[in-house]
Order: sequence, then structure tokens, then C-alpha cells
Amino acid sequence: MDNNGDEKNINIAESGDEDNGQIVTPWEVSAKDGGKIDYDKLIDKFGCQRLDLSLIQRIERITARPAHVFLRRNVFFAHRDLNDVLDAFERGEKFYLYTGRGPSSEALHLGHLVPFMFTKYLQDAFKVPLVIQLTDDEKCMWKNLSVEESIRLARENAKDIIACGFDVSRTFIFTDFNYVGGIFYQNMIRIAKCVTLNKVFGIFGFTNEDHIGKIFFPTTEAAPAFSNSFPHLFGSQDNIRCLIPCAIDQDPYFRMARDVAPRIGYQKPALIESSFFPALQGEAGKMSGSDPNSAIFVTDSAKDIKNKVYKYAFSGGQDSKEKHQKYGANLEVDISIKYLGFFLEDDAELEHIKTEYGAGRMFTGEVKNRLIEVLTELIDRHQRARAAVTEEMVDAFMAVRPLPHMFD
Amino acid sequence: MDNNGDEKNINIAESGDEDNGQIVTPWEVSAKDGGKIDYDKLIDKFGCQRLDLSLIQRIERITARPAHVFLRRNVFFAHRDLNDVLDAFERGEKFYLYTGRGPSSEALHLGHLVPFMFTKYLQDAFKVPLVIQLTDDEKCMWKNLSVEESIRLARENAKDIIACGFDVSRTFIFTDFNYVGGIFYQNMIRIAKCVTLNKVFGIFGFTNEDHIGKIFFPTTEAAPAFSNSFPHLFGSQDNIRCLIPCAIDQDPYFRMARDVAPRIGYQKPALIESSFFPALQGEAGKMSGSDPNSAIFVTDSAKDIKNKVYKYAFSGGQDSKEKHQKYGANLEVDISIKYLGFFLEDDAELEHIKTEYGAGRMFTGEVKNRLIEVLTELIDRHQRARAAVTEEMVDAFMAVRPLPHMFD
Repeated sequence: MDNNGDEKNINIAESGDEDNGQIVTPWEVSAKDGGKIDYDKLIDKFGCQRLDLSLIQRIERITARPAHVFLRRNVFFAHRDLNDVLDAFERGEKFYLYTGRGPSSEALHLGHLVPFMFTKYLQDAFKVPLVIQLTDDEKCMWKNLSVEESIRLARENAKDIIACGFDVSRTFIFTDFNYVGGIFYQNMIRIAKCVTLNKVFGIFGFTNEDHIGKIFFPTTEAAPAFSNSFPHLFGSQDNIRCLIPCAIDQDPYFRMARDVAPRIGYQKPALIESSFFPALQGEAGKMSGSDPNSAIFVTDSAKDIKNKVYKYAFSGGQDSKEKHQKYGANLEVDISIKYLGFFLEDDAELEHIKTEYGAGRMFTGEVKNRLIEVLTELIDRHQRARAAVTEEMVDAFMAVRPLPHMFD
Repeated sequence: MDNNGDEKNINIAESGDEDNGQIVTPWEVSAKDGGKIDYDKLIDKFGCQRLDLSLIQRIERITARPAHVFLRRNVFFAHRDLNDVLDAFERGEKFYLYTGRGPSSEALHLGHLVPFMFTKYLQDAFKVPLVIQLTDDEKCMWKNLSVEESIRLARENAKDIIACGFDVSRTFIFTDFNYVGGIFYQNMIRIAKCVTLNKVFGIFGFTNEDHIGKIFFPTTEAAPAFSNSFPHLFGSQDNIRCLIPCAIDQDPYFRMARDVAPRIGYQKPALIESSFFPALQGEAGKMSGSDPNSAIFVTDSAKDIKNKVYKYAFSGGQDSKEKHQKYGANLEVDISIKYLGFFLEDDAELEHIKTEYGAGRMFTGEVKNRLIEVLTELIDRHQRARAAVTEEMVDAFMAVRPLPHMFD
């Protein structure tokens, strides 16, 4: 199961694979001809492993708690070396979690919450430290935001992240414009020395027209995967394993980090990777912050949520009552069912809805109403938590200091 | 005289210009077919200006002191916008100096001292702050040194630089592995956004086989040319002009910085540029730390200096006493004469030696003896100053603090 071989031998994805048609890079996700992302093909292409039932059961056993709904429902569906991390954990060797976000918009949408909700579960279940990188430098470059605006957005986004409930005594949130430097920068250079231009052309699809900031940026996202990048947390220890929960479009960065790791004497980071949170309009792409009608934002009102779900959530229901009762809904394309799969925790209720809706005994309106309830509650809870986040709390999460709790 | 146009229109040098044959990049300097560097061609190609007598006289007038020997003897022979800096200085607008070194070897050689000796003169004459960048990251990448070894060499080299007599109350010395971050890093990203891969291919001759650290590095050398990269010195002021004394092989970095400057709202840095310090074997290249017999090091003993000058200093004298007395020495190729031009301060004595040697009345041995005296005194003085540099002094120069004296 485990992949301990040389990452270089993995078939590195080109951003636009002609035979396949689907594009999955850290900056673009689109399926072939408006269809669905083929995750099996993605696993093959990227060279990661499927997260199967036995591994989920193993996590439940080790953490002595039920698997997170995102595990049970296959939202997190792929991994690299997760078994190794669990083996080591059972031997008493600890690991730390690393996740992050590119702060390109004022407000997060539901898709942005997914990795943070899941990471919080992992932090609670394994009682391990967590570093969260806000790549303000990335968004300054890719979205052509000013440095100042990127920094402001990073701080605003940090509040939404904190509102997900992370434990300040185990969590360090940092922005690149604040934190890059010193040993972190030394690791960026160590990584850079192992990565040729040809290599980043292959991994990320850069071209000669791209600017040199983009070319170098992958080192910035790879550095947090090595524990000694955080001397205030881990001292100079470079032997603490890193587990990275992320959406699978971030895999290229960590494929690169895993390739480089043994050459600079570090452990390869392990990954646990999610599928994309679909846009309201359907599963061809991922929810995008830049198309407001494709996304439900954490700032949306109950009325916004209602309107968006009614108006835009793609329905798998038939176009007449009679046909619906005869053929039932196509659950495979129904966005409300997909969203309930992410956020309705009650397995029995979800199964019931799918059965009834699939058989044509339940109609789209009813499913959407239930989804609106679930989302409204989720967003309302988030907004209340967000409102309680003070500037002092942000400063505490971002303080460069030893964590009060590490592995206890 | 002044070049205020768009730097992009300057004909950007390729590293190996076939018609010309000479190669001048930050990493390689070699003349065509073992001949001499053609500095006139270099000025044309790079698009800088010749530093003429009227400009030297203007500097003497403004600073109310005689021009440095390196100005009088045309060691610093080219510039960009130096007149503008002097105009502004006369209007009461201040500037700061920026120079640096790539710490690739344990000991500096004579050629390395040239920019620092000259920068010290400028600091004393204009009473302005100075920042000195030690590019430990660069040497880690280009010389394939470990991070730790690059950091160690940077600190050792800082001691030799301090021994040149800089005023600690006006001088900030920094290494990239220590100082990159925060606003400095923000400027690196601002710069990077304006520079495509195609552009660095053209300016620096990079290829697809180069690693991504090299590709990004030019931003690190450009950032100190913008004053707000040093908030502890200049606050957020980005309007303080920068004057960069450097050897002309560094021109590509600052051509790039000048190109970028107006696009990110900063002033273009001005330059004052020197020719190369020739190797003992002759003027085809510059003295190189990696060939010990090509260079006189600041650690050399009096005996080393004597041996190297006798054995390796290329002579323009004729190969028999009779021919020498008949034709005289060829001063154009004689390395002892070149070196005396750098380091023998007495203009009259230098003129006398050149006249007598050129007429065949003085022999190579005598000239070499005088050079050995001059160099031995210089190196001895340096070694004594170097021995007096304590770790505390290094810490003081490297401390990130406001400078006690800025423009007073």
C-alpha cells in the first residue's frame, strides 16, 4: 500500500492532459467536456493511494472515536503514506498537521471550510500540533492583488479559520509575508536547489511567460512540510513527520516536496486528500470564490442561502412530476444530495433521503429545503463563532512562540 | 548624459555574445581569446554611461575632498544616473549606499577589497548610511555549499569587510539567510511579479536546466536597492535614492531593478561601476578566489605576496635586458603596473614608475619590489584591522536596529 519509492518515478501530471481532458492544477480544476472529475484517473495519474475502508477503520480504532463524516462519505478519498504515519503513531512517534489557504477573497465559501473542518477533527482526534499557512504571497502573484491587500485578506481569512474551532494551544497560523525568513527561507533554498525549471514546467505547467515569483513559489508551500521550518515549535528537529490534509489539486506541491525530502535529509510528508467541493451548478468544477453564484459564502444570510439553493443548485430530479415519480432523481448529478453528503451528519437520514429521492417519492423541493436547513445552521454557527474572534485571538494564533500543548 | 528612459529598451546582454566573444555575467568574466575586457563595448552593450573627468571633478567639489584614487585612475569608470544623485544631494535630498558580496570563500582577495575600499570612501565623503548584503543564499546555490557553510563564510567575510573601516553608526550588514522576510520579502515578490522567465533568460542566461532558486535569486539582490526594504533604517520611506558601487558584472541585477522600479512606484537605483581587478596572470579575466595562484588573499603572508608577485605577476617587460632597454616595458599588459594603479596612492610616484619602466630605464624586478612593498603594507594593515574585529562588533554591524547616524 505504501509508496516509499522515489517520487521522481511517478508519472508527473501535465496540467492539460489531452487524452484525459480533465485539468487539475492548484489553480484550475475542470472536468472533461463539462462532465465530472474522474477521481480514479486522478489517483492513477498522481500516483497516490485510495483511502479504503480498512484504513478508515484503522483510524477509528487508533483514535477511539467514529470516523469523521468526510471519511465515512469518501470526501477524503486518497492518501500518501497515511499507513506509515499511523504505524509510527502507534509506536509512539508523533506527527504534526499542516494545511493552509490562499487568501484571495474576503469571505470563505463552503468548499474552503472542508479542509479546515476535517483538520480540526484530526487535531482533536490525534492531539497533535497544527501549522496553517496563509499564502498571501501566492495570491499577491496569481490574483495580482497588492501586497497590502493580500496581507489584509490573510488576516480576515484567519478569523474564519479560527472560527472553525482550532485549539490555540496546539495551532500556529502564519502568513508568508510575515513568516518567510530564517530557517524557513533556508529550507526554501534547500528545496529550490533540488528542483529544476524543467521539473516545475512538468509539475505545474508553467511557461516562459510566467514571472519568476510563480516559478519559485512552490518552495514556499513545500517548506512547511519539514518540521525544522518551525524552530519555535520543533527546535531543529527535522524528523517529525508531517501529515497534510488538503484537496487533491494541491498534490503537485507535495509530490515535489516528497521527491525532494530524502535528498535534503528530511522525512517525506504524508497526505490525506479530498475531492473538490462542487459548485452549485454541478460537479464539472470546484466551487469558486470568484463566481459568487457558484458558491455559498460563510457571510451569506439565511435568505441568500435559500435563494442560491433554490435558484442554482443543480437538480437530478426529472422535469415533470410524472417522470420524476416514474424514474426517480439522478442522485449522481444532484448537488443538494452532494452537499447533504458533506454536511448532514446523520447517516440514516441521508440514506433515507437518497432512497426516497432516488425512487421518485421525494421531490427536489423537499431535498433543497432540508439542505437549506442544514446549511443555514452551519453558516449561522460559523458566523457566531466568527463574530467572537477578536484581534487578540488572531495575534495569539499567529504569535511565534512555543505551543503550550504539543503532543499531550 | 542621464538615462531616465525605460530600461526595457536597453539592449539586454546575452551571456555569450558571439560577435563580441567576451562574456560578462555575475558568474563569469572572460575576454575574447584571452585578450582584455573591452570596457567601451561593455558600456555600449549594457547601456550605462562613462564616468568622465567633469563628473569626477563635480564629486570633488561637492565632497570638498580629493577624488579617491579609484576615481582618478578610472577603476570606477561607468555609472547610471550618478548626476541625478548628485543633483538631488545638492538640493538636500539624501541617498544611501548599497553594496555586497557573495561569501564563497574563507578569505577575500585583493579584488574583493576594491568595492569595499571605495564604498568606505563614499560613506566618509557623503556621510550617508550604507547597507551591505552578504548573499549566503546565492553561494549556497551557485557553489553548492551547505546552508550552514554559507552562513559561516558570510560571518567570516563580514569580519574582513568590517576591517575595511566602515562606520558602525552608519552601516548595516546583513545576510540573506538571516534577513530575508517581512517587507524585504514583500519587495522580492513585488519585483518578481514584473520579471518573466523570458526576461531572466535574456538578462542572466539561465536555462531550463537551472534550478528554481537561481531563477528567483535576482529579486534578492534587487530588493536592497529600494529603501523601504529596511524599515528599521528608513521606516516605510520608498523615496530615498540608492547608489550602488559595484563591479560592472553586477550590472544585470540592477538593470533589472531599474526596469522594475517605476512599475512598483520606487526610485531607480543609481550605479557607480568598476572594472575588474585583474588576475596575476593577466587581464583576460578577473581575479578568482577559486584559483589560489591567480589571487593575492588578505590572509597571505609577506612571503606569499613576494612569491606570488615574483612568480605569477604577468610582466610587460622585454625578455632580455638589451631589448628592454631598447623597447621599454609594455605597460598595457603589465600586471604590477595595473596593481600599483589600484593601490599606490602617490600619483607622482606612479607616473615616474610608468615613465621609467615604459622607457626601459626601470626593470620588472624593481617594479615588482615596489608592488610587494605596497601590497605587504596594505595586507598587513588589513590583517591587523581584521584581528581587532570581535564577534561583538560583527553582532553590532548586523543588529537590526535604527542607525545612530544616518545623514549627519
